Amino acid sequence: MAPSIAILGGTGKEGRGLATRWAHAGREVILGSRDPARAEGVAAEVGGGGSVRGLGNADAAAQAEIIVVATPFEGMADTVRGCAAALAGKLVVSAVIPLQVQEGRVTTRQVPEGSAAQLVAACAPHARVAAAFHNISYRLLMDLEHQIQEEVPFAGPEGDRQGLTALCSDLGAHGVFVGGLHLAPYLEGYTAVLLSVNRLYRTQAGVRFTGLPETA
Amino acid sequence: MAPSIAILGGTGKEGRGLATRWAHAGREVILGSRDPARAEGVAAEVGGGGSVRGLGNADAAAQAEIIVVATPFEGMADTVRGCAAALAGKLVVSAVIPLQVQEGRVTTRQVPEGSAAQLVAACAPHARVAAAFHNISYRLLMDLEHQIQEEVPFAGPEGDRQGLTALCSDLGAHGVFVGGLHLAPYLEGYTAVLLSVNRLYRTQAGVRFTGLPETA
Repeated sequence: MAPSIAILGGTGKEGRGLATRWAHAGREVILGSRDPARAEGVAAEVGGGGSVRGLGNADAAAQAEIIVVATPFEGMADTVRGCAAALAGKLVVSAVIPLQVQEGRVTTRQVPEGSAAQLVAACAPHARVAAAFHNISYRLLMDLEHQIQEEVPFAGPEGDRQGLTALCSDLGAHGVFVGGLHLAPYLEGYTAVLLSVNRLYRTQAGVRFTGLPETA
Repeated sequence: MAPSIAILGGTGKEGRGLATRWAHAGREVILGSRDPARAEGVAAEVGGGGSVRGLGNADAAAQAEIIVVATPFEGMADTVRGCAAALAGKLVVSAVIPLQVQEGRVTTRQVPEGSAAQLVAACAPHARVAAAFHNISYRLLMDLEHQIQEEVPFAGPEGDRQGLTALCSDLGAHGVFVGGLHLAPYLEGYTAVLLSVNRLYRTQAGVRFTGLPETA
């Protein structure tokens, strides 16, 4: 059976979107939240049939095989540190983007570790950390009829390519391994470009690679 | 008539590729180099018919209407400062990427101004600075039969959208305005992702946006 997935900060929009698609694909999904009762409530909304549960973040991390971090950047490090024991030896995927708005412009803030994903790795030193899912719009995820056109680039341990590709497939998206976690700053940062494009053209933009072989 | 183009550091691979396409599209192109004789030599090779000239960087900048910076990052600031008077009031497009290789990994180095393009703007304070052309492979540019599939995202002054779009069209590529120069770090940084993708899949990868309206 496909590994179960906990989504830390899973009651936010992005978490709901991911949970909806993964549950629809038959994955066991646990929404984590600082407030377990809230996680249960959102799980009941999202899950429909009941394949989505809600728990506190640390319990969600302990009970799942793969953990997706989808909290706001603020508080992310504390949340991950609080679950670090439960994350040891597991695949942890950061979908967090350290965005800031200054004078109406969206940019990424300087993270001493290089990126939110690298900060996750620093906070959970015994986990296998990857970066993915930064740009798939909540609205498009929630619309199960919508065929996702954009690709999902992901960076992380080479040994987890297959597991990460399956996470993308179960969202209905084509995942593309781009290399190690040192590339996370660029995957996170491109979100600032896409948000600007969304505003300029009133759309929900994503990216696809050109020149990839069929087998990629 | 379409504005003439100087390419500073134009004797490098990327400069030759851009010059080849622009000359082919009927643009007047001036290759700039620290070594004017070398610029003349490369211009003769590239130009074939003679629509490409070679000059020292400062003379090239003085004689053209649009200036493209295609030097290595090392030395870029000095080159731009040396031409700053000639750049005043002109559109200056940085194609420079501040890459570094550490332990076999390609990343971008920290630039206090935020990006190579923002450093260009600091060195030429009276120019209108944009960032573009980071990722089009030299090999694909040189092959005039090759139809460019990737898009060319560019960031810069809104008032130069049309001029920048025309520069892209004359390369045979679709230019996409993504917003202001504050987005240059992310356009430059994505090059690290594409270089990794190129190595992993033995290809020349680029990006296209999904979700853009036809008119974008």
